[in-house]
Amino acid sequence: MFHLIFAESALELVPDEIRGHPAVRNQAQRSGKRPTEDILDGTFHHSAMKRLDNWEQRGRPDIIHMSLLVSQGSILNREGHLRTYIHTINNELIEVDPKTRLPRNLERFKGLISKLLLEGELKGRTEEAGTELLKLTKLMTIEKILEKIAPDKVYALDDRQTIMTFKKVLRSDGLGPKDLEKMNIALIVGAFPHGEFKINLSKLASKVFSIYGDTLELWTVVSNILIDAERALGLSGSD
Amino acid sequence: MFHLIFAESALELVPDEIRGHPAVRNQAQRSGKRPTEDILDGTFHHSAMKRLDNWEQRGRPDIIHMSLLVSQGSILNREGHLRTYIHTINNELIEVDPKTRLPRNLERFKGLISKLLLEGELKGRTEEAGTELLKLTKLMTIEKILEKIAPDKVYALDDRQTIMTFKKVLRSDGLGPKDLEKMNIALIVGAFPHGEFKINLSKLASKVFSIYGDTLELWTVVSNILIDAERALGLSGSD
Repeated sequence: MFHLIFAESALELVPDEIRGHPAVRNQAQRSGKRPTEDILDGTFHHSAMKRLDNWEQRGRPDIIHMSLLVSQGSILNREGHLRTYIHTINNELIEVDPKTRLPRNLERFKGLISKLLLEGELKGRTEEAGTELLKLTKLMTIEKILEKIAPDKVYALDDRQTIMTFKKVLRSDGLGPKDLEKMNIALIVGAFPHGEFKINLSKLASKVFSIYGDTLELWTVVSNILIDAERALGLSGSD
Repeated sequence: MFHLIFAESALELVPDEIRGHPAVRNQAQRSGKRPTEDILDGTFHHSAMKRLDNWEQRGRPDIIHMSLLVSQGSILNREGHLRTYIHTINNELIEVDPKTRLPRNLERFKGLISKLLLEGELKGRTEEAGTELLKLTKLMTIEKILEKIAPDKVYALDDRQTIMTFKKVLRSDGLGPKDLEKMNIALIVGAFPHGEFKINLSKLASKVFSIYGDTLELWTVVSNILIDAERALGLSGSD
């Protein structure tokens, strides 16, 4: 099984300290919500966000939305080999059920996440009744998430590391299709727009690598990685 | 060069025949536009759309939006090996400049396309002044688009065909990295939600194939194909 961890995701409710700001109040009014029920979003809250610590790494729900659409729609997920975790900037964990079909519309996705962060769970209409489409656990650091998954191998992606395909990373650890069928492999990617990880990747992962010599959109990174995992497992047509 | 053609894309202005429908009028009012300046979108116009011919293949701007974000962000495009064309259900051609950074927000994307369809061009702020970010040409069938591109090879993707990776398709035609550097390869994918192509793919393409045994999201197909093209060209880390 592959475990994809979106780390330090720029996904949170509007923090208390800016709920009175005009940009926040106006946007809440438009969406018919209280300010602190809204998801922080730079598209609407830019002027208010500048008051926040570390604001350039926050308020980008579109990054995680697009990347989740890519991961949930992947052949790796369709074939049952992927588990997806969102770790947020506030150390929450959101587990995404492989069968969850997320709204393609960002505003609806934000509505869903807002409900989840306020209420703690979202049960839904998948085949099995009572499945939690999205499950929230608070106070979960990356370390705790890794303890929970207990993977055999942990890899991480970051900028300015040795450039390798994920396929090559797996092969350099001697991992072939049969190993991958049995093993739990975790991969950490950052889901924030700018800057550096706060966590110490090289302490958590046995290998930190890049797939390209420049910054890519997160969804480009994710599709690249997942397709390599599919190919390594022999799922999506052998070469 | 790879030429990606999104065929029969479900992208159009609200057609005259439903401009008076309450669902259309309400949505136009909300966005401060005249009904016929709005992009047809099943999310908002569902009840009105049922009056249209062929309605199940129409009104899905989100499909082309997501897929363009994937193609524009791809390593193949970043490395200058991709040209992207949108053929619409109304036989318009929209050429997307490789440097165009599209809005991540669907509503803003729809605004841009509406402006383009009404005014015919969108010049913009890329490095070279005067570059057309998106260029519209009317009365362009797929046949005419292929005449304009004049590719050496045309391939197409469709459901229920032989399952092959794009890499394998290229290899089965004896095409290696050096050939691909020099050749123009066109690939046709359908950018509509349901049903069959109206064009006759097997007349236009030398090979029609599938990459998976079931329906996939278009963006999953696109990333799969583009990553194979990158790998075939030796761009994104050799195996």
